[in-house]
Amino acid sequence: MTNPSLLILPGDGIGPEVMAEVRKIIGWYGDKRGLNFDVSEGLVGGCSYDAHGTPLTDETMEKAQEVDAVLLGAVGGPKYDDLDFSVKPERGLLRLRKEMDLYANLRPAQCFDALADFSSLKKDVVAGLDIMIVRELTSGIYFGEPRGIFEEGNERVGINTQRYTESEIERVARSAFELARKRNNKVCSMEKANVMESGILWRAVVSEVHEKEYPDVELSHMYADAGAMQLCRWPKQFDVIVTDNLFGDLLSDAAAMLTGSLGMLPSASLGAPMANGRPKALYEPVHGSAPDIAGQGKANPIACILSFAMALRYSFDEGTEADRLEAAVEKVLADGVRTADLLGEEGVNPVSTSEMGDAIVAAL
Amino acid sequence: MTNPSLLILPGDGIGPEVMAEVRKIIGWYGDKRGLNFDVSEGLVGGCSYDAHGTPLTDETMEKAQEVDAVLLGAVGGPKYDDLDFSVKPERGLLRLRKEMDLYANLRPAQCFDALADFSSLKKDVVAGLDIMIVRELTSGIYFGEPRGIFEEGNERVGINTQRYTESEIERVARSAFELARKRNNKVCSMEKANVMESGILWRAVVSEVHEKEYPDVELSHMYADAGAMQLCRWPKQFDVIVTDNLFGDLLSDAAAMLTGSLGMLPSASLGAPMANGRPKALYEPVHGSAPDIAGQGKANPIACILSFAMALRYSFDEGTEADRLEAAVEKVLADGVRTADLLGEEGVNPVSTSEMGDAIVAAL
Ligand SMILES: CC(C)[C@H](C(=O)O)[C@@H](O)C(=O)O
Ligand SMILES: CC(C)[C@H](C(=O)O)[C@@H](O)C(=O)O
Repeated sequence: MTNPSLLILPGDGIGPEVMAEVRKIIGWYGDKRGLNFDVSEGLVGGCSYDAHGTPLTDETMEKAQEVDAVLLGAVGGPKYDDLDFSVKPERGLLRLRKEMDLYANLRPAQCFDALADFSSLKKDVVAGLDIMIVRELTSGIYFGEPRGIFEEGNERVGINTQRYTESEIERVARSAFELARKRNNKVCSMEKANVMESGILWRAVVSEVHEKEYPDVELSHMYADAGAMQLCRWPKQFDVIVTDNLFGDLLSDAAAMLTGSLGMLPSASLGAPMANGRPKALYEPVHGSAPDIAGQGKANPIACILSFAMALRYSFDEGTEADRLEAAVEKVLADGVRTADLLGEEGVNPVSTSEMGDAIVAAL
Repeated sequence: MTNPSLLILPGDGIGPEVMAEVRKIIGWYGDKRGLNFDVSEGLVGGCSYDAHGTPLTDETMEKAQEVDAVLLGAVGGPKYDDLDFSVKPERGLLRLRKEMDLYANLRPAQCFDALADFSSLKKDVVAGLDIMIVRELTSGIYFGEPRGIFEEGNERVGINTQRYTESEIERVARSAFELARKRNNKVCSMEKANVMESGILWRAVVSEVHEKEYPDVELSHMYADAGAMQLCRWPKQFDVIVTDNLFGDLLSDAAAMLTGSLGMLPSASLGAPMANGRPKALYEPVHGSAPDIAGQGKANPIACILSFAMALRYSFDEGTEADRLEAAVEKVLADGVRTADLLGEEGVNPVSTSEMGDAIVAAL
């Protein structure tokens, strides 16, 4: 049997540093658990633009289509701010999402016990928080046509199009209901059906999928503005939230920040099953490329390491190994090991990116 | 000289109850300060639909165009959930905003000292918070065409259009810069220029207005998802935030909730100056119609009363009287007077909507 294949795209900023720690974890699984991966590496984002004049080459795109899972660090940085829209670092990431058709973006917002004090929210509001935001990732206003900046009369007009088809809503709704069944069996769907027709269709289709296929799951609907409020007020009322690409972008970031564990949060972007039964998949930390601390060994590698744990669970059916890795992370945190982003407690000295990786390997 | 004119539209749910308290305040200003208003009243939202089959009649629309300011309670309720989109209560409010061309929606997110404990955020994060969100209110995806639900092949497609012209962005940017000059001279503009062309235009035009007309104001730009995060993390970093209609809807609601003072927050929606120099204006609380507590005398009238204070300031050039009314509200809160939404402290009994109104009149 051949080994499952992994394409690693460290990207920009702190991407390469945190990915180096994931490599250690992958190494450990090969050595100690006989779990070997065929690992290849490529460029995405600003570094790809620097090397090839494009944020993602066709060769790397093809490679991503062939492998069992892609692991991405982060893209972007101020160096690329003035690039044309079409070659910005973000376009590389968006092309991967679109061409791999990764329609379900799973973003857990979890509060780590050892870190509840880092939240700007009161401890009782966030302690034990564990929600899952399922964001539609390949359609909506991110990709709808027409789009662009046009001349009209004597002024410019900026246009983007929110566009959702019934089948696009159906498939992401199914992802959310399936996840809910493995969790607390509750889905809250968010849109602006009071203002947007695309929201009306969203609500109708989610309700239809629910009625026909998942009547056992509890379903509620909320306007996205009320959803933003409720996330800030009492996030524990939610289990799974399903929402569109743009609302999901804002709501999942707000939720991630609320946990106080931003440097810790992974994400999985999943598409349809491939011939081998595995879903097309890309895993990446929720945090960005943090250019201000890049190259200094200060970055927290945990979000990226936990993204690999999600890969073990969702791509490789190694739920037990994913649990093991997550437990190792929790142990290291409980032991008080902290990278610089997690300081605040008296008398704790920060460890480097690489020391954090080593500590997690040791805990495994 | 004729008295300035006010059109009162109490609307649905708790709207009529809270507006009754505003009437008391208006009465006090006539009796004690010689500030008299020509007050008329009309229907908007579900109650207008019940009476006339439309959430806003042409007569009421015309009236709103003629008066010096409109004061609105709230619209909507579950009773109207199954109405066709075109006659939903919200359409009445959206028609007022659009036809009066109220392009600048001012939403202060302020934390009242006496209420800082009600926030889900830690006290040091919100105490003393005072930011102003300026939301574009008459364009963007709320009004862009094409829009609707269409058949395509054998499925439905939901479409909405985000559309901003240069001049629409310019005028709301000016509103934000003008406000900043009277505050802490800082504007942060939020969009998704990394993903949306309309965001690129937004950023460019705000920068141009800044450079040409307001170089003395400090301007920064943030992606809206990062903005949502930063509002949750450390909202005091902001002074004035300017953003589009849809982002403004989510971000201002999140910010309002963060203060812990949701039942207290007013808003002003302003348009171009009329012949008499006053801006077209509509004032309304940020909270909704709260159908669950409607008619029970439990609602907090403060947001609606503070909306009238904003009217005094922005429509009638009575800044000193607005200060007086705001001070009366703060005094009543400092004295421990609480409606049911503000309970939580030991041994405090809630007052009714009407008792809260009376207490504020007494404090004046
Ligand atoms: C980098 C950017 C294009 C991206 C997005 O807007 O989707 C990011 O914010 C995210 O949430 O993954
Ligand atoms: C009631 C609704 C149409 C409205 C909006 O979406 O603008 C409300 O949420 C608001 O923020 O004033």
